[in-house]
Amino acid sequence: MKLSVFTVPYSGLSLEETLKKLSAMGVQAVELGAGGYPGNAHLNAKALLADDEKVQAVKALVKKYNIEIAAISCHGNPVHPDATIAKDFHDQFIDAVLLAEKLEVQTVITFSGCPGDSEGSKYPNWVTCPWPDDFGTILDYQWNEVLIPYWKDTVDFAKQHNVNKIALEMHPGFCVYNPETLLRLREAVGDVIGANFDPSHLFWQGINPVSAIKALKGAIYHFHAKDTKIDERNVGINGVLDNKNYGDVLGRSWVFRTVGYGHDQEIWNDMISMLKAVKYDGPISIEHEDALMSIDEGLSKAIEFLKEVIIFETPTSMWWA
Amino acid sequence: MKLSVFTVPYSGLSLEETLKKLSAMGVQAVELGAGGYPGNAHLNAKALLADDEKVQAVKALVKKYNIEIAAISCHGNPVHPDATIAKDFHDQFIDAVLLAEKLEVQTVITFSGCPGDSEGSKYPNWVTCPWPDDFGTILDYQWNEVLIPYWKDTVDFAKQHNVNKIALEMHPGFCVYNPETLLRLREAVGDVIGANFDPSHLFWQGINPVSAIKALKGAIYHFHAKDTKIDERNVGINGVLDNKNYGDVLGRSWVFRTVGYGHDQEIWNDMISMLKAVKYDGPISIEHEDALMSIDEGLSKAIEFLKEVIIFETPTSMWWA
Amino acid sequence: MKLSVFTVPYSGLSLEETLKKLSAMGVQAVELGAGGYPGNAHLNAKALLADDEKVQAVKALVKKYNIEIAAISCHGNPVHPDATIAKDFHDQFIDAVLLAEKLEVQTVITFSGCPGDSEGSKYPNWVTCPWPDDFGTILDYQWNEVLIPYWKDTVDFAKQHNVNKIALEMHPGFCVYNPETLLRLREAVGDVIGANFDPSHLFWQGINPVSAIKALKGAIYHFHAKDTKIDERNVGINGVLDNKNYGDVLGRSWVFRTVGYGHDQEIWNDMISMLKAVKYDGPISIEHEDALMSIDEGLSKAIEFLKEVIIFETPTSMWWA
Amino acid sequence: MKLSVFTVPYSGLSLEETLKKLSAMGVQAVELGAGGYPGNAHLNAKALLADDEKVQAVKALVKKYNIEIAAISCHGNPVHPDATIAKDFHDQFIDAVLLAEKLEVQTVITFSGCPGDSEGSKYPNWVTCPWPDDFGTILDYQWNEVLIPYWKDTVDFAKQHNVNKIALEMHPGFCVYNPETLLRLREAVGDVIGANFDPSHLFWQGINPVSAIKALKGAIYHFHAKDTKIDERNVGINGVLDNKNYGDVLGRSWVFRTVGYGHDQEIWNDMISMLKAVKYDGPISIEHEDALMSIDEGLSKAIEFLKEVIIFETPTSMWWA
Amino acid sequence: MKLSVFTVPYSGLSLEETLKKLSAMGVQAVELGAGGYPGNAHLNAKALLADDEKVQAVKALVKKYNIEIAAISCHGNPVHPDATIAKDFHDQFIDAVLLAEKLEVQTVITFSGCPGDSEGSKYPNWVTCPWPDDFGTILDYQWNEVLIPYWKDTVDFAKQHNVNKIALEMHPGFCVYNPETLLRLREAVGDVIGANFDPSHLFWQGINPVSAIKALKGAIYHFHAKDTKIDERNVGINGVLDNKNYGDVLGRSWVFRTVGYGHDQEIWNDMISMLKAVKYDGPISIEHEDALMSIDEGLSKAIEFLKEVIIFETPTSMWWA
Amino acid sequence: MKLSVFTVPYSGLSLEETLKKLSAMGVQAVELGAGGYPGNAHLNAKALLADDEKVQAVKALVKKYNIEIAAISCHGNPVHPDATIAKDFHDQFIDAVLLAEKLEVQTVITFSGCPGDSEGSKYPNWVTCPWPDDFGTILDYQWNEVLIPYWKDTVDFAKQHNVNKIALEMHPGFCVYNPETLLRLREAVGDVIGANFDPSHLFWQGINPVSAIKALKGAIYHFHAKDTKIDERNVGINGVLDNKNYGDVLGRSWVFRTVGYGHDQEIWNDMISMLKAVKYDGPISIEHEDALMSIDEGLSKAIEFLKEVIIFETPTSMWWA
Repeated sequence: MKLSVFTVPYSGLSLEETLKKLSAMGVQAVELGAGGYPGNAHLNAKALLADDEKVQAVKALVKKYNIEIAAISCHGNPVHPDATIAKDFHDQFIDAVLLAEKLEVQTVITFSGCPGDSEGSKYPNWVTCPWPDDFGTILDYQWNEVLIPYWKDTVDFAKQHNVNKIALEMHPGFCVYNPETLLRLREAVGDVIGANFDPSHLFWQGINPVSAIKALKGAIYHFHAKDTKIDERNVGINGVLDNKNYGDVLGRSWVFRTVGYGHDQEIWNDMISMLKAVKYDGPISIEHEDALMSIDEGLSKAIEFLKEVIIFETPTSMWWA
Repeated sequence: MKLSVFTVPYSGLSLEETLKKLSAMGVQAVELGAGGYPGNAHLNAKALLADDEKVQAVKALVKKYNIEIAAISCHGNPVHPDATIAKDFHDQFIDAVLLAEKLEVQTVITFSGCPGDSEGSKYPNWVTCPWPDDFGTILDYQWNEVLIPYWKDTVDFAKQHNVNKIALEMHPGFCVYNPETLLRLREAVGDVIGANFDPSHLFWQGINPVSAIKALKGAIYHFHAKDTKIDERNVGINGVLDNKNYGDVLGRSWVFRTVGYGHDQEIWNDMISMLKAVKYDGPISIEHEDALMSIDEGLSKAIEFLKEVIIFETPTSMWWA
Repeated sequence: MKLSVFTVPYSGLSLEETLKKLSAMGVQAVELGAGGYPGNAHLNAKALLADDEKVQAVKALVKKYNIEIAAISCHGNPVHPDATIAKDFHDQFIDAVLLAEKLEVQTVITFSGCPGDSEGSKYPNWVTCPWPDDFGTILDYQWNEVLIPYWKDTVDFAKQHNVNKIALEMHPGFCVYNPETLLRLREAVGDVIGANFDPSHLFWQGINPVSAIKALKGAIYHFHAKDTKIDERNVGINGVLDNKNYGDVLGRSWVFRTVGYGHDQEIWNDMISMLKAVKYDGPISIEHEDALMSIDEGLSKAIEFLKEVIIFETPTSMWWA
Repeated sequence: MKLSVFTVPYSGLSLEETLKKLSAMGVQAVELGAGGYPGNAHLNAKALLADDEKVQAVKALVKKYNIEIAAISCHGNPVHPDATIAKDFHDQFIDAVLLAEKLEVQTVITFSGCPGDSEGSKYPNWVTCPWPDDFGTILDYQWNEVLIPYWKDTVDFAKQHNVNKIALEMHPGFCVYNPETLLRLREAVGDVIGANFDPSHLFWQGINPVSAIKALKGAIYHFHAKDTKIDERNVGINGVLDNKNYGDVLGRSWVFRTVGYGHDQEIWNDMISMLKAVKYDGPISIEHEDALMSIDEGLSKAIEFLKEVIIFETPTSMWWA
Repeated sequence: MKLSVFTVPYSGLSLEETLKKLSAMGVQAVELGAGGYPGNAHLNAKALLADDEKVQAVKALVKKYNIEIAAISCHGNPVHPDATIAKDFHDQFIDAVLLAEKLEVQTVITFSGCPGDSEGSKYPNWVTCPWPDDFGTILDYQWNEVLIPYWKDTVDFAKQHNVNKIALEMHPGFCVYNPETLLRLREAVGDVIGANFDPSHLFWQGINPVSAIKALKGAIYHFHAKDTKIDERNVGINGVLDNKNYGDVLGRSWVFRTVGYGHDQEIWNDMISMLKAVKYDGPISIEHEDALMSIDEGLSKAIEFLKEVIIFETPTSMWWA
Repeated sequence: MKLSVFTVPYSGLSLEETLKKLSAMGVQAVELGAGGYPGNAHLNAKALLADDEKVQAVKALVKKYNIEIAAISCHGNPVHPDATIAKDFHDQFIDAVLLAEKLEVQTVITFSGCPGDSEGSKYPNWVTCPWPDDFGTILDYQWNEVLIPYWKDTVDFAKQHNVNKIALEMHPGFCVYNPETLLRLREAVGDVIGANFDPSHLFWQGINPVSAIKALKGAIYHFHAKDTKIDERNVGINGVLDNKNYGDVLGRSWVFRTVGYGHDQEIWNDMISMLKAVKYDGPISIEHEDALMSIDEGLSKAIEFLKEVIIFETPTSMWWA
């Protein structure tokens, strides 16, 4: 496994400044945004695709700092009911794939996307209950008329460009939000589709990430180290379905936290161990989002924490068994 | 408190057969459907409003069996994005109110309803997350342009017809789905809006119904005795956000159950005690929905269970304090 | 074991009315107050000691209703720092012992009492912490100068009058409030001192009554069936040390409840089973104090509950071991 | 489902006295011992097989009391390393099968048996750990050389005599002691082998019987209603592997109990519900073994408890899904 | 937040030696005793108030080692029923306030104090239960006749001398021992009164310190990092009300421990996070009291632990919300 | 306490290489295998006993690296039913004792051993249940005819050679596997017998190692720092009695892990604290067996973890009590 960082919080710094900083902190890999929600501060796909020298410069830079680009991220909603928005996200994803090909990066990360309730709708409709029957009708439309066709085409494109791992982040607000929906799409579309496993979106759903990792054996293509703190007293009254702004730390049922501040080291040790047991050996990529910490302090705490937790090496034979 | 039954499962029997049966089982009150999702098998509002003799016949019937009509139910989605559907639900609700007035019933039960994402949408859009920003936009539209205006008008109508308690069932798939959203609408519209407290929709959200009852002190207008069994192993992998059909008992993360088969007697004792402590003294109305039991057996078990649990009488002074 | 009731809640009824009522409910024994805090509505010791015919009348009455007097209660504070109060409680206890002798009742129940901080104080000083050193000084005074001498004398008196079981209720506000303090006094004074085991005073201290019963093997002389409901949310903020009035049900950290409304049947089954395992075969005496229930309903629920829980018969040999 | 009783505790009564007694208590079926550890007080196989009139008399008797013979039990160790003992158990089992055929009983219950460590050993060797390697060697011998061959033959015999369900009780001390070992034998030998599911042997192993029932979907042929109380304080020091005599109630880590005195009603409701969900609809057979209760009181408590818990009827369609 | 140490354990060293030692360990602030129970080894108020040069010397010293005096401590019982003791504690507190003014320290820490049961008593009477009525009488006397008047005067004095934060340590044995009593005094006397939040006195009361911090939002003026280990097996028998000497580590229900040895890092992370969320940004001051560790080892472990836990910096804006 | 390492994983390195490596990692002591299951890579007893110079060389080596030999290990089964195997283990143990004498090492570690079911058996028979009666018979034979006589003789021999601490590792597969069986043998044979306390064999039995340490006060002679991860989902179905190979990490109910990867730091802090409280001040010896980690990474993590956890120094007086 490698210790990686998703560089969005340092969008204010240049790629080189960022790599320098992370290298000094002992980070071995980075996940770089190339469009979509994460922005493209460190990897301007359009500019890079237009100028191969710039691509070579990026390659030289990561080599200089001995840091691997573990994945390119381009989270978006390419099936957004608003066609303009959808196309914009789609185009950015296509560019991310093309860039990945050039940079020889294996993995591109995004969301599954979420359509609206029907063709006339304006916004995504995230279905989380089976009744009244409206919701079944929406699901049928979303999966069979939009989602599966879209990803069949897009996976074909990715394959043609040597990107064989599209890591979908299971995320609220999108059709793929838990192992069951991830596996459903993977079964329908093929195994280029896998998971970007980010436990912060799973904890509050009641998912035990260790069990979920085991259930996704073979289908995990990337891992986000982000944590979630659940406020049990708030949940006790209002439940986990909280649509209030993330900034309401005292009022919300849960908020994102730096790793180790949402759950204790035991569950992080357990996740890493289960990843190891199902033969995942890829990046452990810190996505820092913590309303109570500065970027430097939060990231630094996350890095120190994960250096203790991650199992970097390959096990030897069992002499005691 | 009174032991009540929501009579939907006996829609195949006449009102009199139903009352006779329930009376023999020791039931003291009924909740009758007068349209909407529950149907109108026992209370055909249109027919009754057209013929006052029929109204008197209903009154005589309940008197004969010494059973009180504790509430009239007419769950619907009067803000459905499809105008025809919305109007149909609205009209039925209006009739239910008028019928309640004639039958001198205090409480009418329904859902808050759930609009679509915008005017052009076809189906409800239930928002349970705050990001991406689409969802905030939808919420703003739903609450400020649709929900609050609708209920302001409807509450005015109800008041004019002496219905002072509209008990909204906090239910997934509708804008009011937990104490926070209930209180938000109540604050915006006035205290004719209160809760039909049905713990079966709250358990799986992570809500502790005892804490929720305390938080809703003064705003609980009706209580549904229905239970939910959470399958911890399924939740551990896929979480509580399960949009699969209720019939998939082995695969789902949770299913509805007869009271006592979802949670033990302790939590039912606690709910009844907290209702008593916040001065709720209304009906405890069994809504029987259990995929593993016949109607007669399930209802009979629920009735026996609740006879043990319910605190029927008023406490005396505390000589020991 | 026998199902017994402490008759204080029926102080408004005569002894005969009370026995008649309880007999009809299937109760097999009673615990009667003969002074002290419980009052003497059903057993006026002064009057009975002065007139042997009245004693015979009581005996005839319990025989008539086939109910045993399982214990006489006279809870007081005979070591109160106010000498007048102390003497009054002491005199009542002495009369209770004499009356027990006449009625051939084995067990008299009371509190250990609680002295003040020193001779000049006016009120009891219940010590529950070891620091600052003032508290150690108080404890030394209370136990060595007051409590042990008092009970040595009183136990001698009891023995002379054939009362061989003084069951001290481990109770907050008194020196004997948990197994450790009970056993300390028993060791100092002798085994006439035993416990009136009332779990309602132990739960909120964090005591597991099943473990406590095992620890008190051989030293349990009477058992009170009273329950306590702990409000976990209130405790979470203010802790279990709650000196607010018992009437503040919503604000307090814990309140007394009818058996089964504070803890579930499992722990009651466990307590009864452990009592059986340590060879206690005496009365299980309901002390009804519940701010949310009427006397009749609360007592009736308690009786039905305990009929299920109590193990009335003696086990047979183990053919399977 | 039917409420059944395993009649061993009434071995001192005749079959008719037993049936009369149980019938009056509302019991619908019985499990009768026909040899092996349970003895043959109510079903002397040798005598019955020799005299068809006696068989008819038994049939008439159960008809008279409207009680079904749900299963014949003949628990033994037919692979005991002592050949004489093994043969004796085997012969009794063969007779039990033949008798089942005559009485038209579907199910015969027994243990898998447990061989010794090798041919020269005298007593069974129950293997519960994988190291040192001795234990792997023993397992290989037991399963491949003894257990599987024995049951292949015996299953053939049973099939020839129309006994298609051999319900092996997963039990400590025998090779089949948990779902994994049961399924292993079933896979090797065929689906005449199924489980007699007795949760009392599973609880202390840490098995959640509800999960185990789901894992054994389709392979459960009989169910024993017996409970186990785990003493958490004793386990905390000495663990669950307790080889002390069952009579040491205070010292042991766990003891058998009447249903409801080992675990609360919730888990019994859950087990019955899961049995229903996996389509088990056979007998729920009380095996009464409780060191703290008399037979009559214990059995009576168990019967009342299970009448509340068991789901006797077949569910109707789901109108709410 | 700043990492601080309460220097009592180093009373054998000079202030300079202590500051030097702590500075080398990365400590940023100190809490210094200036009388009362903590003694005045490092801050002799009488001597300093008499000689301004000595005050300047202290200021120079802390500047030299770049350590801030975060608070002055002078825990006492200024309402002790023994007038001499009370006056002594009061005088020391007054001096501590005057010294704080000179040293420009914002916060002075003490206890609320605890009166006796009445004017004639000799020792404090800590009331933790509401019945018998004696205790209500004592509480009324203590709060209304002693505590509130005393603190009104004392707060006035403090304000006049620019000490605007009197941080009362919620502590057993004193009237203010939990958030409710702290807030009661604060409401009666004004917001110069706030809390010295020391979780070690709250854990064993059943208080969740995270919930308590939230409940005290705005009223926390200082924080003690001390831990408590609860012995669940001892509590299970004797409860949390343990008046045995702190030295009885194996017998007591709880003992003080170095941070991290009473509760795991998760709850410490949670406390720090909640402090941050309620905008507390003051010292986290280690009070080392651990019967199983040497001072140097215990303090060193505490410092390393808190360096990981404390959030030193101020958060930046939330780009993800 | 001292940080020690059991050197088996470095059997491929020479003793000097091993000591050098461990010394550099801050290790203070070693446990060296001298035969039996651990092998004798670092301490060839036969060779050393034959050549005193080699003994002096070992002494010089540990002195050179400032590492203490804390114990000699020679785990075996000297009561194996196969006489040849038994003798071989016995002879190696005898040599280990003689070598300990020469090296002036206090403690020799082994297993109690486990006989067969009788004299004719070939493999050990580990008894973990009391019924059927075969198991009682086996136990009687094993303890009274084999185990106790064997250890009486062997303890005599050890004493004669100044080895006064034989630390038996409580281990599945051997007669001494929990505190009760350890204390039984110690009582029968004398206090040369004590425990090598390895929590990894106790966790899955349900033992709380902290409680077990307290129960073994005075009888703990050595401590193994090894951890066990319990897979709750696997246990939920198949229980803790898992005889599958240790290599089946995903399928087993539990596997060995590096300290901190089986249980969190809290329980390790608690164990160390309880060891300290019962006055154990010996080695904390890492036995590294982890199927998911390399030797170097696993050992390095264990060492860093234990440096935080272990209490190295002796506590000072309690100024706060």
